[in-house]
Amino acid sequence: MKFHVLTLFPEMIINGLSTSITGRAMEKEIISLDAVNIRDYTISKHKKVDDYPYGGGAGMLMQAQPVYDAHKAVCKGRNIRTVYVTPQGSVFNQKMAQEFAKEEELILLCGHYEGIDERVLEEVVTDYVSIGDYVLTGGELAAMVMIDAIARLVPGVLNNDVSAEFESFQDDLLEYPQYSRPEVWMDKAVPPVLLSGHHVNIEKWRLAQSIERTKERRPDLYERWLANHDQGSKSK
Amino acid sequence: MKFHVLTLFPEMIINGLSTSITGRAMEKEIISLDAVNIRDYTISKHKKVDDYPYGGGAGMLMQAQPVYDAHKAVCKGRNIRTVYVTPQGSVFNQKMAQEFAKEEELILLCGHYEGIDERVLEEVVTDYVSIGDYVLTGGELAAMVMIDAIARLVPGVLNNDVSAEFESFQDDLLEYPQYSRPEVWMDKAVPPVLLSGHHVNIEKWRLAQSIERTKERRPDLYERWLANHDQGSKSK
Repeated sequence: MKFHVLTLFPEMIINGLSTSITGRAMEKEIISLDAVNIRDYTISKHKKVDDYPYGGGAGMLMQAQPVYDAHKAVCKGRNIRTVYVTPQGSVFNQKMAQEFAKEEELILLCGHYEGIDERVLEEVVTDYVSIGDYVLTGGELAAMVMIDAIARLVPGVLNNDVSAEFESFQDDLLEYPQYSRPEVWMDKAVPPVLLSGHHVNIEKWRLAQSIERTKERRPDLYERWLANHDQGSKSK
Repeated sequence: MKFHVLTLFPEMIINGLSTSITGRAMEKEIISLDAVNIRDYTISKHKKVDDYPYGGGAGMLMQAQPVYDAHKAVCKGRNIRTVYVTPQGSVFNQKMAQEFAKEEELILLCGHYEGIDERVLEEVVTDYVSIGDYVLTGGELAAMVMIDAIARLVPGVLNNDVSAEFESFQDDLLEYPQYSRPEVWMDKAVPPVLLSGHHVNIEKWRLAQSIERTKERRPDLYERWLANHDQGSKSK
């Protein structure tokens, strides 16, 4: 899968994703990452890419022309799904990651300053996506997060089967607590059930822990799980 | 403000945050970033930091000892608020960013593999925080996102007044579309109201656009805004 990132900080994208698992997937050529500097496409003499917003307001806005020409240079006439990374978007989730992972190529457009001229967004953007309800200094980290979440779903990027891992978001419950060696650490023992070898009891214990934790930390997910669970019981 | 990140990939944190606005704030010494390699603290001969989970399950778990000792080395006897970056946490938002920005020091603990032994989490973690409902290859990018969102709220990191920018999350409406020069681009004209100089009309138009956009892209925020708005009207 090919990722193209349109940004004013290409080195941030490359540096941030070149280590760890995504970096290894790039070395193995399972995914590729192309960071395009929007500034290279401005026709302004002074390499300017921003200007004041019409109607007033704080800060500067990225102008339409450099963004449009950078996008055109990547697409070369092809239609490529283009995600604008913005707090003014739908909130990214695991289902979206799975959907985007089906694309052969994906363009991520990163805003900086106060945003981008609306007219170029209307021309090039297919999806407006936010990673959450918080404000970042730019779209680069958010684009990296999306690329990481999408890339790990591309076959061959992770070594082991990943299905188990994202189940927690599919059944609306958070994962249970886990324990590794040694059996006793700082006077804290591993819960005895996990050493019992009794798989049914282990599963029961883990489910109870997941429910308890979800109720406490994510009441929203817990409500959803409860609603689905009740329905399931009734339909039986 | 001092950020300490406990991680198996310190270079990812440093590289990813050294450019752009956070990098500049580090140069100006308004914030500092210290990435601690958990592997440096293992007492295992082969520098091992992970092992199988008790009770079975896919993948490997980070063990308690190296995490505990890395944390102790950072704290040096002080109590420092410690965030475990995990999908099994409360969802990060702008209000949390503002709360964390009040701390003088903050520790972010990044998991890898299938998570971390629960016993060390009980010992060192004060807050369990997720950046959203999607799965990443590790906690590093999520920690970088949190640091960026928190750091920009530290006085002096951004040049201009930031209050206007995060208002969109405070009043539950997304930002309106924005336009910059030229007035006409690719046969698309800037909406005439923005050129009128009539500030009341501009505000009205922007509010209407914000409402329309929120309704379309974030029905959850729109419902909340509507509830608050209705209440406001009634109380008048």
